[in-house]
Order: sequence, then structure tokens, then C-alpha cells
Amino acid sequence: GFAHLDTHRELRNGYPEVIYCAGKTTDQVAAIVKRMLELDYSNILATRANSDVARALQALTPNVEYSTTARIAVINRKPLPQPAGTIAVVTGGTSDMPVAEEAAITAEIMGNNVKRIYDVGVAGLHRLLSHLDEIMSANVVIAVAGMEGALASVVGGLVDKPVIAVPTSVGYGANFHGLAALLSMLNSCASGVAVVNIDNGFGAGYMASMINHM
Amino acid sequence: GFAHLDTHRELRNGYPEVIYCAGKTTDQVAAIVKRMLELDYSNILATRANSDVARALQALTPNVEYSTTARIAVINRKPLPQPAGTIAVVTGGTSDMPVAEEAAITAEIMGNNVKRIYDVGVAGLHRLLSHLDEIMSANVVIAVAGMEGALASVVGGLVDKPVIAVPTSVGYGANFHGLAALLSMLNSCASGVAVVNIDNGFGAGYMASMINHM
Amino acid sequence: GFAHLDTHRELRNGYPEVIYCAGKTTDQVAAIVKRMLELDYSNILATRANSDVARALQALTPNVEYSTTARIAVINRKPLPQPAGTIAVVTGGTSDMPVAEEAAITAEIMGNNVKRIYDVGVAGLHRLLSHLDEIMSANVVIAVAGMEGALASVVGGLVDKPVIAVPTSVGYGANFHGLAALLSMLNSCASGVAVVNIDNGFGAGYMASMINHM
Amino acid sequence: GFAHLDTHRELRNGYPEVIYCAGKTTDQVAAIVKRMLELDYSNILATRANSDVARALQALTPNVEYSTTARIAVINRKPLPQPAGTIAVVTGGTSDMPVAEEAAITAEIMGNNVKRIYDVGVAGLHRLLSHLDEIMSANVVIAVAGMEGALASVVGGLVDKPVIAVPTSVGYGANFHGLAALLSMLNSCASGVAVVNIDNGFGAGYMASMINHM
Amino acid sequence: GFAHLDTHRELRNGYPEVIYCAGKTTDQVAAIVKRMLELDYSNILATRANSDVARALQALTPNVEYSTTARIAVINRKPLPQPAGTIAVVTGGTSDMPVAEEAAITAEIMGNNVKRIYDVGVAGLHRLLSHLDEIMSANVVIAVAGMEGALASVVGGLVDKPVIAVPTSVGYGANFHGLAALLSMLNSCASGVAVVNIDNGFGAGYMASMINHM
Amino acid sequence: GFAHLDTHRELRNGYPEVIYCAGKTTDQVAAIVKRMLELDYSNILATRANSDVARALQALTPNVEYSTTARIAVINRKPLPQPAGTIAVVTGGTSDMPVAEEAAITAEIMGNNVKRIYDVGVAGLHRLLSHLDEIMSANVVIAVAGMEGALASVVGGLVDKPVIAVPTSVGYGANFHGLAALLSMLNSCASGVAVVNIDNGFGAGYMASMINHM
Amino acid sequence: GFAHLDTHRELRNGYPEVIYCAGKTTDQVAAIVKRMLELDYSNILATRANSDVARALQALTPNVEYSTTARIAVINRKPLPQPAGTIAVVTGGTSDMPVAEEAAITAEIMGNNVKRIYDVGVAGLHRLLSHLDEIMSANVVIAVAGMEGALASVVGGLVDKPVIAVPTSVGYGANFHGLAALLSMLNSCASGVAVVNIDNGFGAGYMASMINHM
Amino acid sequence: GFAHLDTHRELRNGYPEVIYCAGKTTDQVAAIVKRMLELDYSNILATRANSDVARALQALTPNVEYSTTARIAVINRKPLPQPAGTIAVVTGGTSDMPVAEEAAITAEIMGNNVKRIYDVGVAGLHRLLSHLDEIMSANVVIAVAGMEGALASVVGGLVDKPVIAVPTSVGYGANFHGLAALLSMLNSCASGVAVVNIDNGFGAGYMASMINHM
Ligand SMILES: Nc1ncnc2c1ncn2[C@@H]1O[C@H](COP(=O)(O)O)[C@@H](O)[C@H]1O
Ligand SMILES: Nc1ncnc2c1ncn2[C@@H]1O[C@H](COP(=O)(O)O)[C@@H](O)[C@H]1O
Ligand SMILES: Nc1ncnc2c1ncn2[C@@H]1O[C@H](COP(=O)(O)O)[C@@H](O)[C@H]1O
Ligand SMILES: Nc1ncnc2c1ncn2[C@@H]1O[C@H](COP(=O)(O)O)[C@@H](O)[C@H]1O
Ligand SMILES: [Mg+2]
Ligand SMILES: [Mg+2]
Ligand SMILES: [Mg+2]
Ligand SMILES: [Mg+2]
Ligand SMILES: [Mg+2]
Ligand SMILES: [Mg+2]
Ligand SMILES: [Mg+2]
Ligand SMILES: [Mg+2]
Repeated sequence: GFAHLDTHRELRNGYPEVIYCAGKTTDQVAAIVKRMLELDYSNILATRANSDVARALQALTPNVEYSTTARIAVINRKPLPQPAGTIAVVTGGTSDMPVAEEAAITAEIMGNNVKRIYDVGVAGLHRLLSHLDEIMSANVVIAVAGMEGALASVVGGLVDKPVIAVPTSVGYGANFHGLAALLSMLNSCASGVAVVNIDNGFGAGYMASMINHM
Repeated sequence: GFAHLDTHRELRNGYPEVIYCAGKTTDQVAAIVKRMLELDYSNILATRANSDVARALQALTPNVEYSTTARIAVINRKPLPQPAGTIAVVTGGTSDMPVAEEAAITAEIMGNNVKRIYDVGVAGLHRLLSHLDEIMSANVVIAVAGMEGALASVVGGLVDKPVIAVPTSVGYGANFHGLAALLSMLNSCASGVAVVNIDNGFGAGYMASMINHM
Repeated sequence: GFAHLDTHRELRNGYPEVIYCAGKTTDQVAAIVKRMLELDYSNILATRANSDVARALQALTPNVEYSTTARIAVINRKPLPQPAGTIAVVTGGTSDMPVAEEAAITAEIMGNNVKRIYDVGVAGLHRLLSHLDEIMSANVVIAVAGMEGALASVVGGLVDKPVIAVPTSVGYGANFHGLAALLSMLNSCASGVAVVNIDNGFGAGYMASMINHM
Repeated sequence: GFAHLDTHRELRNGYPEVIYCAGKTTDQVAAIVKRMLELDYSNILATRANSDVARALQALTPNVEYSTTARIAVINRKPLPQPAGTIAVVTGGTSDMPVAEEAAITAEIMGNNVKRIYDVGVAGLHRLLSHLDEIMSANVVIAVAGMEGALASVVGGLVDKPVIAVPTSVGYGANFHGLAALLSMLNSCASGVAVVNIDNGFGAGYMASMINHM
Repeated sequence: GFAHLDTHRELRNGYPEVIYCAGKTTDQVAAIVKRMLELDYSNILATRANSDVARALQALTPNVEYSTTARIAVINRKPLPQPAGTIAVVTGGTSDMPVAEEAAITAEIMGNNVKRIYDVGVAGLHRLLSHLDEIMSANVVIAVAGMEGALASVVGGLVDKPVIAVPTSVGYGANFHGLAALLSMLNSCASGVAVVNIDNGFGAGYMASMINHM
Repeated sequence: GFAHLDTHRELRNGYPEVIYCAGKTTDQVAAIVKRMLELDYSNILATRANSDVARALQALTPNVEYSTTARIAVINRKPLPQPAGTIAVVTGGTSDMPVAEEAAITAEIMGNNVKRIYDVGVAGLHRLLSHLDEIMSANVVIAVAGMEGALASVVGGLVDKPVIAVPTSVGYGANFHGLAALLSMLNSCASGVAVVNIDNGFGAGYMASMINHM
Repeated sequence: GFAHLDTHRELRNGYPEVIYCAGKTTDQVAAIVKRMLELDYSNILATRANSDVARALQALTPNVEYSTTARIAVINRKPLPQPAGTIAVVTGGTSDMPVAEEAAITAEIMGNNVKRIYDVGVAGLHRLLSHLDEIMSANVVIAVAGMEGALASVVGGLVDKPVIAVPTSVGYGANFHGLAALLSMLNSCASGVAVVNIDNGFGAGYMASMINHM
Repeated sequence: GFAHLDTHRELRNGYPEVIYCAGKTTDQVAAIVKRMLELDYSNILATRANSDVARALQALTPNVEYSTTARIAVINRKPLPQPAGTIAVVTGGTSDMPVAEEAAITAEIMGNNVKRIYDVGVAGLHRLLSHLDEIMSANVVIAVAGMEGALASVVGGLVDKPVIAVPTSVGYGANFHGLAALLSMLNSCASGVAVVNIDNGFGAGYMASMINHM
């Protein structure tokens, strides 16, 4: 009885049911998913799910896809119709992959064609420029970067589509767990950039999908 | 020679030329606009422009509309085609109006139909709920709020359209010049909310217009 | 001899003897409780007690009730007369339960009727609104929320009873371990809201009980 | 049309209509009050009102009482029935008086008997102790202090009534505009202390009145 | 060869040789002490020494006294002449003991008579007042407190001897690892209070000894 | 009636009566001093007094000495016996003089021989070293520095007397109004350094005098 | 007598005598320069000098060149031999010019050929790329940028010469007076970037000159 | 395919290929190095490499040198020509060695003669002064210090060569994980000091090498 489920849910095509697992016990997550399955929910997303949670969910149903990198479990996937436009997910480095995958998988489950372009940070601009066509042909760009987060500004200056910027906690010292990238992205001198919380890949994927479906 | 103008500019329909006046002398702003007028730019936006700047621009050309509240001057306005969808600009209080107007005027100059719904903060929820139809019928919502910035979360939870959240520096004490609202909006438990800088009405209007034109 | 007990204690009906266990060794806590038992104290509350401490206390006396969720041990409970009014404990999410339970159990041991309403955060306002009668009929409301802590403002705007707001450290990134919810609650645009420390369920339960007994 | 007034207002005995003047132009405040007077509101409170605002209100109606210290204007005062209990407003120093008066006047307009005890900070404990009887006989205590804000803890440890702590921005250097007192009060080792925003005398007076009327 | 020892050391009666062990490997600490012993140093103090370090030192020489609480090892103690005055070490709570003991042992090894008065925090002022004679008869007072650190102000207001204030990291939430107590102590409204780093018992003991020997 | 004076004051030789003028109106300061003069107080110190306050005090009595640099007014000076030891006040730069003079004048009024050594910051170490004899012959050293505040560590490492460190708000950018120097001084790797609030020359002079009179 | 001049100065070819005017009175600056002129110093640099200071210096000697933008006065310029390499000073925007000019003039007075490339921020990458040859042919690059400071990373990634990054306080909101750009530059993912204080054009010009003369 | 390698790399004599291992899995690091070996890269530097990573690399090739202290693995070292000048690496304490070694090894692999001078912090100035000749004869100085980071200012004031300052996270309490040393170094009153991120030994070694090769 601890969690409130939306049992009279209206038709909300394309919106996943989402469980944020951090701060919940494995038992609590399993109980919530169990109830959702009884109510016949599809496209359930469990974010920040560790492998214990994944195993507990797999014990409930075979319909669980788990990404170790993204720490996401997708339960009862039912493919949704996809709009023509694509969402590009761009990262500064390899270490930003967990957050980028959280964004990409969220967008995919919501019915989007996702293009991943990883490790193209601004320290070697040629890497970014060599992918410019792919990035510019997307409908929405998700820019994921830690350290100084300059990627968002450079991408925002190059494309004329909405950019969702995701600061990550990758870095050390004066990075202060993602604060440097967050402030950097909020102060972007490029127009057309909006920001979500540090490491919030889910939020970025969700927002990008909303925009891509307009 | 101090500022770089984009003289070979390609056709970028709907994107205004923007001058951020804070930190520039009145003479510098006037020189930039003079050069733009010689190059026959239209839809020039001078943000954070005080009345001195406005007067200097009016001395250059009669085609200046100045908003004291928004501190924006629009020069050489050329109306642009508008998409069907509207952008709703919602504020928590009366004191958030300067930022909200910066957003609304930016969106209007970029060719959007804007609906203003001001002073509907969450301390009196009935005010917000009585405008729910208008808000829900918009294509994009800009939520402008200071103090604790809860408006963005409540709006984000009610509508299923993208919400651009703008924290304002309205408040005092532990508000720390908008930090409270900023952190609040970044941590929104509602999905579909992305954030721009404190008091950045321009950025919100620009982003909302991009989305509304998709 | 390391801890000062109040051996000449006057009659303070309804005030529990409280030991804050964090930063004390299990041996220190046990020694303090042992001495309290010799002095025949009742309604002793050990907060932030881990299961080691709970076991050590159970070795001293059978009269120990331990809540794993709230990390509270109640020793020698002696029920106290209850006033007519109730205290409502409301949370934004399931992850706020440890703090909410600390508040609820503290209020109960001090002689209060407690109504728990959990997982009714503002991202889905209908959940909160569907419990409005229960909340409005309470004498005092304890609003427990992490992330952006908007619950306190929304509740404060709906009820005309004192609201004790408890920010929790639930969240990540720009949440900064509860800072976002704390600042949000301190800046609440609703009147009739006062705030205790991040995760301080005990303090909220104590304050609410004081008010409910007036 | 910029501000939303509650024209169908139900009977809310004892709750003042409040206008927070900071960030509003004098014209905006006057327009709001003019409309309230037409709707026959009484006990209107304009907080953070400078002398310009006061003069503008006095031009609308003779029924304006203005406190220079508290920067509060009370319009159309209609005395309300008072409960038996009193509210004590205690300050650490003389410089805390503006905030203390904001609290005291707010409580008075809401129908409370207020006892002012100023300049009794903990650096000279005898000053506080010599007023202990008055403080302990109050129903609720508002503790207003800047600098290190220790007053709240000491008062909280002495009385067994609810203490509303108001940090003020009095101080300099590592005070960081009231942050030191705010953190101090939030971390109070005394039980029964809850905190409002830095310099928020209004909020403290409102909360204390709510409690005193229970 | 990694550490610089002062081999030509002049006579510095009463100043201990100090090794700060945090951030050094056990081998490094042992090597430094070995060299000191060869040079016949006495009154060596190893602070922040865990039990591994203690064991490694005991393997070098039998003349090691180790305090588990204070995490200090004293090597080759040679009692020093003591001045008449005493140093009082006062704490707010039991959890402040590790820091207080670091201060007390440091002062003792430097030739001082130390009086320990623990768990007399301001939440129960009678505890402090009942020890006032002892505190007032000291030559220097070390006030050790976490949470809101109000103890330093209250003690500073009562005694007219120098007070060395030591904020501790005891607390949680808005305590921010001792920041609340630190700011509180720096802003003390009492005169005659100076502050050392959070948890810096050693520094306080050293400073107090210097003053006591004047 | 707003300020509590200590009318039964016992003999406290050498302790000045101090009024902190910031945040008080000129009238309030004058009223307090008027009452003190009626009670025949001597050695009254008004700190943070601007020239308006100085003039108001000079209108009350001819016995006012005012320092424009230190913003201190000394009223009714009665020279006190001086101990043999001196207090050295050392600054990093010329811009630290207001704070240094506040310290020096405070120490002088409390009966101390003060030696001023200004503009000897560590960027040119020879300046400091050329004054080493004077500094080392003092009984207590007050080290006043802004920017990075390294002076306190260097002085603390050279002398074996207590050092009272005063960070100043001199600097810009990442100095954050004195925070850099404050943190620097609190983390001093030299022993025998204790710190007062940013710009708190008064507190340093008071503490140094207490130590010098032991 | 308040400021320490280096009267026995050895030959330090190329190092200017510098006076940091902020926090000094005009009279103090004039007195220092007067003494320097008597000692026949050349290449004196007065930084952060307002026009009052400039006039006071011009009253002392005709050999004063004053830059209103850079707030620098150069006194008694004696041209120095220049190395072959140039220093490029690059800015993100027009508003960064005061800091950039402080850097450029400092470098020039120390005997360097300086190339100014202003308003080439990353929001329009083509502006930067169109100047790449000039930038890459420099020996050292000074990158001056406010807002998110991404310029330093992009430049650092393109050139293989040392980059001195200067964050400026240009921006608003979550810029926090230059903190965003500072953190961004410290966390640069490009190698070969070192950072000076916010707005410290002087320090950057000095460092770049040192490197250019190697 | 997750990491972008620069396969067409031009000749960049002296620049190491660098992998920042933190936040990458051991498998990812090994895969990147494997690909580099296939492309016949030399002088590969893996920083922040734990012993697991080291072992995985040693399984790929025998040409791995691993420093436990510096957490650096050097793969396929090919000695480079060295310029005449040396780089001095100076530390405040023994605990700064990991960062200092990261800097030293980076500089060595890039073809520099490195002189290590460790544990010469300013608390005992004679230690630093006794090494002055060695320091002053270097071409570039890297100053590595935690706690209050005063070393950078003192070294910067003594030498007239570029100083690269590296704050370390050594310290506790108000050190805030290196923030104190970082702010201290950024505010250095000595000219010719530029700063890299907290604990960024690699960045300092790289920058120093660039300068030394000019
Ligand atoms: N109010 C504003 N807030 C943030 N960015 C702005 C604002 N107004 C203009 N800008 C941005 O600043 C750029 C122009 O800056 P500048 O080159 O300094 O004139 C525009 O292209 C916008 O992206
Ligand atoms: N969870 C808690 N959070 C904050 N304060 C607490 C908590 N539990 C107990 N306290 C306070 O801590 C005091 C006991 O502290 P101690 O003497 O150290 O055990 C009680 O009087 C309470 O005021
Ligand atoms: N001094 C104050 N500090 C904090 N909140 C206030 C203050 N004065 C009024 N308020 C709140 O602000 C609301 C009025 O805001 P507004 O509609 O913008 O005038 C009132 O309902 C109060 O809750
Ligand atoms: N604009 C500036 N920013 C930072 N440091 C400066 C600046 N101008 C001068 N300085 C430094 O300040 C010193 C002079 O300080 P002062 O003796 O107080 O005039 C010079 O040696 C420089 O190192
Ligand atoms: Mg763009
Ligand atoms: Mg939504
Ligand atoms: Mg309410
Ligand atoms: Mg206790
Ligand atoms: Mg005292
Ligand atoms: Mg100087
Ligand atoms: Mg010393
Ligand atoms: Mg480079």
C-alpha cells in the first residue's frame, strides 16, 4: 500500500510508466512492478536499477530487458509507432555512456529512432565536425557531457534544432560532481539549449521524445 | 571593428539577430545596430537594453519598439508566418513579469502566437487550476517562477507538452538570487521539464519557438 | 561518565528521552540506556539506530520496539493521553518513507494520533487532491519531500493549518543531498510553513506534537 | 489585469490579505490595494513597503498605518478576537528589529497579544535569563537573530513551547547574508525549533499566529 | 628521502614533533618515526593514526601510547613542566569526544593540566551552568561542538578568558560536514573567540597550550 | 528602551564597551552612547561607524577620537596599564589597512603596546623577512591579509607565539569576498594559528589583548 | 610610509612595477607613484585605475597613457626588446574586452607583440575557425571568456601551444559572477590549458609574457 | 566502436596519447590500448589507472611501466629528445606525492628533465629556502600543495619563471576537498602563477612540458 499507482489511467500513448529505483528497496520495486503487471501495463521503465533489482524483476516475468551500462530495465516492451525525425545522442567521452544510454533507451521505448554519436568532445573538434551531417539531420539533439560540458554550447551553435543538454558527474576536483558542467550548460552562449539535472539521461530522453513527436 | 557580424548570413527564417546589451556601452550597441541596419537586417532584438540604449536606437531608426518591463528593443520588425500551435507563458507572481515578457516578446518576434497567464503561483492552486484549459491547449509551456519555483513541477505534472522552466531571481534570503528556484526546477519530479538560466526569458522564448515550429 | 543525564528531571509529560545514536558507539548508546532504565525512564527514543544498536538494546530489556525503516528504537513505551486532533504525515514519494516514519513514530510516542499519506507528490497532482479531505481535517501537517520539495508549498497553499516541512536527501545531481528541497521549502510562497533540517523526521514529529497538544 | 485577486473569497477569519511589495512597482501595489478596497477587504498587509509605497497608499485611503522600521503598511485594520495565550518575539540584537517588528505586527493584525523582548543575545546570557519568566509564559516564541543565530538553540532548550526561528541577514563576512544563522538554526540541538527564511518576519508571525489560535 | 626532517633542530621546549598520518601510507609514517627515534626525538605525536599505524609504531618501540578515541599515538613521552593555569576542554555532546580528546592529549603532551567537561551542550543549559565554576577558573577554554556550534558563543559570553572554538563534523543534512558549526563560531557575537578548522582538535590543543604558557 | 545596557556592571578592567554600528541607525547609536555617558562609562568603542555617526557622537561629547581608516570612534578614553609584551599587527598589503587599524586601535584601547608592520605580503618575501626581528619579539601576532591569505601560514611557521589570523575581503573574482583567505587561514599547515571572521579587526584585537594580558 | 617599495631592486628586465589600485585611495596610489618616479622607475603599471586615479597620475607627470576600457595607466613607458613570437588574445564576446585589454596592454608593456582577436565565441564556431591561422601561429594564446567559458577548451583543443584561460564575470544568474566560466576552464578536457583568477587580465598577460620570453 | 581514435594522426612529436581511466571499465581501457598498439602508437599514458587496469595492460604487452603512487601506466615508452631546461616539481607535504608523481612522470614521458623537491611546505620556510637554488635554476616550476596551498604564492614570489600551481585534495574540514588550496592559488598575490584543476598532476606536467619546449 506504500506506492500510489494510477489505476484509472487514461490512454497516454507513448508515455512509459517509470519507476526511479534509487532509494527504494528491491522488494519495493518488485512489488510495484508486480502490481503493474497485474494491471497489464506495458513499456514499464525501471531507472537506476542495479543488477539485484534486475534479477528480482526477471523472477516476475520473462519480459525484462536490462542494460548494465544504462542501469535501466525495460519490462513488457510494446513497440510504438515512430515519427520520421530522429534523435541524436552525442557524448563528450566514453565515460558519459551510462547517462547517454539512459537517454537513448528512454527515447527508444517512447517510439523514437535514436542515433548514437559517442566520444566526440570538443578537445578534438575534428571528431565532432566529422559527424556534423548526422547531427544536423536530427530533429532534436541530446548533448551529454561531463568535465566542462562545452559540448552543449558547440553543438548548440552548429545546429538549429532544440538541444537538450545533460551535464554528467564525470570529472574530479573542481568539477564538484557535475556542477561545472551544469553551470556551463545553463550559461551557454548558444541559443536553443535547455538543461536537465546532472546525470538525468531519462529526463533528457523523455523531453526529446516529446519534442520529436510534435 | 570590435564585434563580429555574420555578413554572409544564409537565410535563417525566424531566427532573430540578438544583441545582449548588458556589459556593452550604449555606443557599442548603437554601432552594432547601425551596421546591421546598413546590411538590411530585420527582426533585430536588443535584450537587457536600458532606456538609454532604447533612445540611442530610436535616434538611428524610427522602427524601434521598446518594452520597459521586458527591457527589450525590437528593431525593424517583419512579421513571420505563425504555426497553428500557441506558446503559453505562465508566471508564479506579478514580480516575474519582466522575465516573462522577455520570453513572450522573443517568441512573438520569432513568429508565434503567445498566451500570457500571469500570477498563478502554487500558493493558491485554484488560480492555476482555473486556467488549466488554456495551459493544456498550448503546444509548449514556459513556466516562469521565483521563490521556490514549484510552479514548473506542478505545471509539468498537469500537461503532457514540453515545459521550459525559467527560474527568476525574485525572492530574498535563502533564495540566493534565484538559486532556490533553479535547483527546484532542475530537480523537478515531473517529466518533460527542461531549464534555462535564471532570468533567461530570451532563452526560453527562443527554445519554445524552435519547438513550436517543428 | 561521558554523558550527562538529567537525574533530577521534573515532570515533562509527553516529552520522550531521546538519544541520537549517529556518532556514538554501540557501547555508548547501550550504557546511556542502561542508566536510564535504572532511573526508570519510560518512552525512551533512540534515533538513527542501526540494527547493531537495536540488538544491544534488546539484550538490556525486552521492552524494545525497533523500526528498520525509521531506524528508531522505542524503549519502555508507556502510552500517553492523546488530544483529539490528528497529525497528517504526507510524503512526495516512497523513498521518503524512512524520514516520514521517524516523524510518525516520534509523534506517536508523544501521544498523538497519526495519519500516514505517502507517495502523493506534485508530479501527479490527482494523488494529492484525492487525499485532500484527510489532510485538511488534520490539526498539523508534516510534509516530507525530496527532489524539488514542491509538496510543502502545494500543501501549505491548500490547508490553513501549520505545516512542518521536512526536506529529504532523496535525489541526485543538483539536488546536492537535500539542498534543493531545503531551499525550496524555506522559500515557500505559501504562508504557514516552517522547516526543519534535511532528513530530520524526529524534529518534525516533536514540533508537530508540541503544536497538537496546545 | 496583471494580478489575480481572490474575488469569491470565503470567510477566512484572521488571515490578512498580504501583498509582498518587493519587485512590484509602486503603481502595481497601489492598483492591487485599490481593487481590494473596492472589494471591501480589511486587514490588508503590505510587506517590504518603502515610504513611496506608503505615500501612494495613503493617497488612496486614510486608513493606513505604516511602520518605518518594519516596512509594513496595515490598511483598513479591523481588530480581531485574541486568544488568551501570548506570542513572545525575542531578538539577539538591536539590528534585528526590522525583522522582529515585521513578525510582531503581522501577529498583531492576525489577533494576537505580542510581547517584545529585544537585544537579549547569548553573548550576555544574563540579559536573556532576566526575561525568562516572560518568555516561558508565552504560548509560542519567535526567536529572531543574525550573526551566529545561537539564540534559537538557547531559547529552544529553555522553553517547552514551539519556537519559530528567524535568521536575519545581520552580520558580515562569513555570515554570508544570513547563511550562518540559517544553518545554525536548522541544526539546532534543541527540539521544538522550526525555521523560516532569512529575514522572513512575516512568515514567522503568520505561523506563530496559526499555532497560537489552535 | 621523501620527508624533510629538521635535523639541526634547536631547542624548542614543549613543542611536540607532529606527524599528520591521513594521506600517508603506514610505511611512510613508520619510516618517519624510525628516523625520529634514531635522532632521539621525544614527545612525538602521530595524529589521525588508525590502528594499523599504531601497531606499526608499536613494532618500532615499546614507548607508544595510543588513544582509539582520539586516533593519536604519543611516542617517547617526556613529561614537561606545567604552568599553574589549566585548560578546560568543553564539548556539546558525546559524539564530539574524538575531537575533544585530540585537543586534550595534545595539550597534555605539551605540558598542561587539562580539565575535561563533556556533553554540556546548550540545548540543556543547566548542564553547562552547573560546571561554570570549573570553566571560569580555567586559563583558556577549548569549546568543541558540532551541529549548530552555539556552545562557543555561550561559553565566550560567560568567561573572560580566550576561547578556542573547534567546530566538529557531527551532524547531518544542512550541517554540511561541519560548515554550520564553523560559520556559527566565526560569527560568534561573543568577543574573545577564535576558531580552528573543522575537527582540528590538535590545532586547538596546540594554540591553547601556547597561550597557557605565556 | 530598545537596547539592553548592563547597568550593574562589575569591574571589568580593560574590557571596552563596544557598539557595532552597522545595521543601527545613527539615532540608535547616539542614544546608546548618550545613556552610557550618563552611566559614566569610559573606553567606549563604536566600530563600523561612518562619518555621520562620528559627527553625531561629537555632538554629544568632545571626548571622541575618530579614525576614518578604521571606521572606529573611541569615546572617553581612559588609558589603562600596559603589560610588557607587544602585539604586532602585520598586513599583506596596503588595502588591508582598514581592518588592521580596527585591530590595532582595539588593542590599544584595551591597554596594549601595538607595533604596526604593513604591506609585507608573501609575494615579496624579503619584505616580511626584513621585519622578522620585530615580529618575533612580539608576544602575539595579528596577521591581516586578503587575496590568498598566505601571510598567516608563513608568519605562523616563523614565530612561536600565538597568531590571530584575520582574512580580509580585499580581492576579486574567485576571492568571493574574503572566502579564499578565510579557507586558506583555517587550513593553515602551521600550528598556532586561530582565525576570526572576515574583516573582523575588532575581534582579533580583542583576542590578542586577552592573550597579551595573561 | 604605508607601502613597501623595493628600493634596492636588482635588474629585472621586462618586469613592470605594478600597483593594484582597487582598495587604495587615490592619494595612496599617487603617493606610491610619486615615490617610484623619484626613484626613476620606468614601465609602471597601475591596474584597476579609475579616471580619478588617472587624472591624479597625469598631474604628477605627463608620461601617462591611460586606457578607459582596460582601466590601466602606463607610466614612463620605455619600450623593451620583443621576442619573435606573438601572443594572441582571443575573446568570446565584446563584453570581455576590458579584461582582454588588461591582458594585452600588460603583455605589450613587457615587450611582446600582441594580436587581438575579439568576439569569436563558440556559439558561432565559424568566427573562431576563420581566425584559426592567426591563432595557431601565435606562441601563446590568452583565451578570455565569460558565460560558460567554452572558448578555452575549444582553443586548447585546436592549438598545440600553451593556453592561458581567463574567466570573466560577464553573464548573469547561474553564472555567479564568473564561477561558471572559472569551473569550466579548470575542468577543460583539452590539455595545455592553465587558468588565472576571474577577470585577471593582468595575471594572464604577465604569465603569457614570461612564457613568450623563454 | 565506443571510443574515437585518431587514426590519421599527424606527427605530434612529444605529445603522449592519453587515456583517462576513471569512469571507464577495465575492459574499455584494455580495448582502447589494444587498438592503439595495433596502430603502433608509442608513449601511451594511462592516468588514474588502478592495479586492475595495470594488470590488464600488462597482459596485452610487456612494455608497461606502472607507478602505484602516481596511478599511471606508461606503455611503449620511446625516449624523446630533451631540451636543456629542467622542470622542478615542488610539494608542500608527503601526502601530495601521488599528484606530484603524476606531473613528474607526464613531464618525463614528454621529454623533460625533472627535478623532484618534496615536503618543503611553508610551515617550515627553511626547508623551502634550503632548496632555493635548485628551484630558481629550473625553467618552469610545478607547485603542488593541499591544505591552504600557500606554497604557490611563496614560490611564485621567489622565482621569475612560470609557476604551474596544482591544488591537491589533501586536507579535511574547511578544506572542502581541495577548494581551499584552489581558491588560494587562484588568488595568488604573486604574478606568474597559473592554476590547473585540483589533483590534476597530468595537466600540470603537460603544460610545463609545453613551456619547457618553447
Ligand atoms: N537575454 C539573453 N540571455 C542569454 N543569452 C542571450 C540573451 N540575449 C542574447 N543572448 C545570446 O547572445 C548572443 C549575442 O551575444 P553578443 O555576441 O555578445 O551580442 C545571441 O546570439 C544570443 O544567443
Ligand atoms: N534524529 C535526530 N535529528 C536531530 N536531532 C535529534 C535526533 N534525535 C535526537 N535528536 C536531538 O539530540 C538530542 C540528544 O542528543 P545526544 O545527547 O547526543 O543523544 C535530543 O535531545 C534531541 O534534541
Ligand atoms: N515579507 C514576506 N516574506 C515572504 N512572503 C511574503 C511576505 N509578504 C507576503 N508574502 C507572501 O506573498 C504572498 C503575496 O504575494 P503577491 O501575490 O506577489 O503579493 C502572500 O500570500 C504571502 O504568502
Ligand atoms: N589586476 C590585477 N589582478 C591581480 N593581481 C594584480 C593586478 N594588478 C596587480 N596585481 C598584483 O598586485 C601586486 C601589487 O599589489 P599592491 O602592492 O597592493 O599594489 C603586483 O605585484 C601584482 O602581482
Ligand atoms: Mg543553435
Ligand atoms: Mg508532464
Ligand atoms: Mg496555508
Ligand atoms: Mg546528550
Ligand atoms: Mg568573553
Ligand atoms: Mg604592495
Ligand atoms: Mg608557529
Ligand atoms: Mg592543446
